[in-house]
Amino acid sequence: MRYSELNKIQLVEEHHKLIKEYREIQHMGLSLNMARGVPGKDQLTLSLPMLDIIHSDSDCRTIDGSDCRNYGVLDGIPECKRIMADMIGVNPTMVMVGGNSSLNMMFDTISCFMNKPLVEGCEPWNRVEDRKFLCPAPGYDRHFGITEYFGFEEIVIPMNEDGPDMDMIEEYIKDPSVKGIWCVPKYSNPQGVTYSDEVVRRFARLKPAAKDFRIMWDNAYCIHDLTDEPDELLNIFEECEKTGNIDLPIAFCSTSKITFPGSGVAAMAASPNNMKVIKNKYRYQTIGYDKINMLRHVRFFKDFDGMKAHMQKHKKILQPRFELVCDKLEKGLVPYGLVTYQKPKGGYFVCVDVMDGTAKRVVALCKQAGVVLTDAGATYPYKNDPHDSNIRIAPTFPSMKDLDAALDVFCTCAKLAAVEKLLAE
Amino acid sequence: MRYSELNKIQLVEEHHKLIKEYREIQHMGLSLNMARGVPGKDQLTLSLPMLDIIHSDSDCRTIDGSDCRNYGVLDGIPECKRIMADMIGVNPTMVMVGGNSSLNMMFDTISCFMNKPLVEGCEPWNRVEDRKFLCPAPGYDRHFGITEYFGFEEIVIPMNEDGPDMDMIEEYIKDPSVKGIWCVPKYSNPQGVTYSDEVVRRFARLKPAAKDFRIMWDNAYCIHDLTDEPDELLNIFEECEKTGNIDLPIAFCSTSKITFPGSGVAAMAASPNNMKVIKNKYRYQTIGYDKINMLRHVRFFKDFDGMKAHMQKHKKILQPRFELVCDKLEKGLVPYGLVTYQKPKGGYFVCVDVMDGTAKRVVALCKQAGVVLTDAGATYPYKNDPHDSNIRIAPTFPSMKDLDAALDVFCTCAKLAAVEKLLAE
Repeated sequence: MRYSELNKIQLVEEHHKLIKEYREIQHMGLSLNMARGVPGKDQLTLSLPMLDIIHSDSDCRTIDGSDCRNYGVLDGIPECKRIMADMIGVNPTMVMVGGNSSLNMMFDTISCFMNKPLVEGCEPWNRVEDRKFLCPAPGYDRHFGITEYFGFEEIVIPMNEDGPDMDMIEEYIKDPSVKGIWCVPKYSNPQGVTYSDEVVRRFARLKPAAKDFRIMWDNAYCIHDLTDEPDELLNIFEECEKTGNIDLPIAFCSTSKITFPGSGVAAMAASPNNMKVIKNKYRYQTIGYDKINMLRHVRFFKDFDGMKAHMQKHKKILQPRFELVCDKLEKGLVPYGLVTYQKPKGGYFVCVDVMDGTAKRVVALCKQAGVVLTDAGATYPYKNDPHDSNIRIAPTFPSMKDLDAALDVFCTCAKLAAVEKLLAE
Repeated sequence: MRYSELNKIQLVEEHHKLIKEYREIQHMGLSLNMARGVPGKDQLTLSLPMLDIIHSDSDCRTIDGSDCRNYGVLDGIPECKRIMADMIGVNPTMVMVGGNSSLNMMFDTISCFMNKPLVEGCEPWNRVEDRKFLCPAPGYDRHFGITEYFGFEEIVIPMNEDGPDMDMIEEYIKDPSVKGIWCVPKYSNPQGVTYSDEVVRRFARLKPAAKDFRIMWDNAYCIHDLTDEPDELLNIFEECEKTGNIDLPIAFCSTSKITFPGSGVAAMAASPNNMKVIKNKYRYQTIGYDKINMLRHVRFFKDFDGMKAHMQKHKKILQPRFELVCDKLEKGLVPYGLVTYQKPKGGYFVCVDVMDGTAKRVVALCKQAGVVLTDAGATYPYKNDPHDSNIRIAPTFPSMKDLDAALDVFCTCAKLAAVEKLLAE
């Protein structure tokens, strides 16, 4: 009984039934949040021992003898650079470790290029009146926010099952005012798509008209698997080395969803040419980031293998949550033809498409029933989803019990919004 | 026996004697650093218990119940805002707590105004081709570095005993391309000058031609006394409230020289109008700074009184170091008419003027003898000290024994450079 096949009378009946269901839900007085990719309490507890790991003066020393409590060491302590380099898949010489937020490093990178020329002969981007940025969508709202803040025109690039539409990208980069692209190449936010080998290779082969075009390669979920058959992502730097395009990508990662979202360690990696411009900013911007926190991470994980082992614990906690969401969608919406989605193999989201033209209504209905979702449209530049169908579900924060309740609400709201729409047609 | 009164023969004799002394010093193979205002090991140990203060899940909660480990709380946890507000002397509503570096917040503030208009009708500063910034000098080299990085023409404002030359400032601000001024109003870097009440009041009364002129009020040494009769600084915000100029100052402070230089907490305070522009940047730049570190600080100090009590311990460690420096200068250089300086009542430096035209030579001689000082000229915009006389001594990092040796080297080098100069005349 797909909704699209119901006749008017059946729809009216269904509407009555759903309204009754919805009122009952409203009376439950729920207050649940599935808006952001926020780790749950049990995940935070996993890294608690990290807070209790440095006790004495001698504990504060790096492998090369500097005292982490004091000033200095602009690009991060060597042992932390090593782990973050392994995470990104580059040599530590290409890495700069930052503060608690890779978003902050991305913002600062765009800000840097706004004010200083990235390549000799190019203008700083604030001089490029019609500057543009490519935005694969659905994507990460905070990426789009940064380039919107800095006055870029944002061009939507549709996402396919193997990554963004490369044909379109190859066309757009012929325009020298197109300065870059946002990418979450593994377990993308929100769809959980991992770029195929061919997509990564086509990125590495790009020859943009703008010499200062850059790929913002936000590998936020590089080791954030949800299954025992993780996706594999080609190493963008290795591919760009082969094509002579090593200045093209700038990669970012962090431990926000490995240790603590608010107190993790962020890092970036880039070619010597890029790093020269970026570090020339950093040396005016700061004397150095929090080295004690870097050291805490190193002492806690020992090395990258230790970090990956730690991720197994997160997987164990998250797996059932994602199973539950998909199970609820399968039973609650799929039979009615009211949802399409891909079961993610990693990352932090389940990305669903509800009936065209109903996403905003679904989110509003959920909110009135006490379940907060990411705003509909947020996964698109300017918060403008042309189909009004895409909704990002973040199932990590609520408990299993709450998640169960929240998904029931979601399914009811998706059905109610669909019936309303069909009745109005 | 002032050097200026020696005749040629006496100078040659003195030169022979000093050359011999200098060679002996060189043979000692010293390796000492008095270049930067870096706390010593004994100071770092004072805050060691702070690293060991959060153990359990419940320890991570703020007074209003948020979990410091997770995302969120853009402007800092309430209890930390309270302490930093007390430090700056404002209401917590005016405060934003940042990461580990007030320098970073200052850089980000200038960067913000470079890219976005600060006042309606004004241009972002990157559109102001002939933008200028006022730089009281001698001053903090990293301040000058920021505005130099962003392409400002830097105008030197001479420092008097009670603060910068206000007559000159009042004149320069008639130019609408003059966008701001750097200030370290208490125990200034490097001279240790505290601005007089009259200077602060004249700042509060400024009526700059540029509506977006701002006073960068870096109160880095607000509670960093070295004596039991601390200087008192008028509250710039209270004075600006009286003159209707509340948008004029933006204040900064940090715990870098209270707890740990690399892992402290920084904060800024500004009027609602300014904060609106600044926070509109921050909300794209980050989800929030390290709240666990904020919490550590609060748990360690309890409140601002606790922080001030902690500063007594620093004072106890630093007092003898500064006494030693001044004692050495009094005995080693003052009798020869080779130095002028003011004994500082707070802060991190002893700022000396050696014989005109010899500062660079003194620093070079010291370096060759194994004693690293701040580069001569660094206390001036573009590293250009017009008299080549100013040297910043940072006596906090070396041990008392090393400091003793380093000052002997310094005195010998200052004498040698002076004799060389007099002989060449």
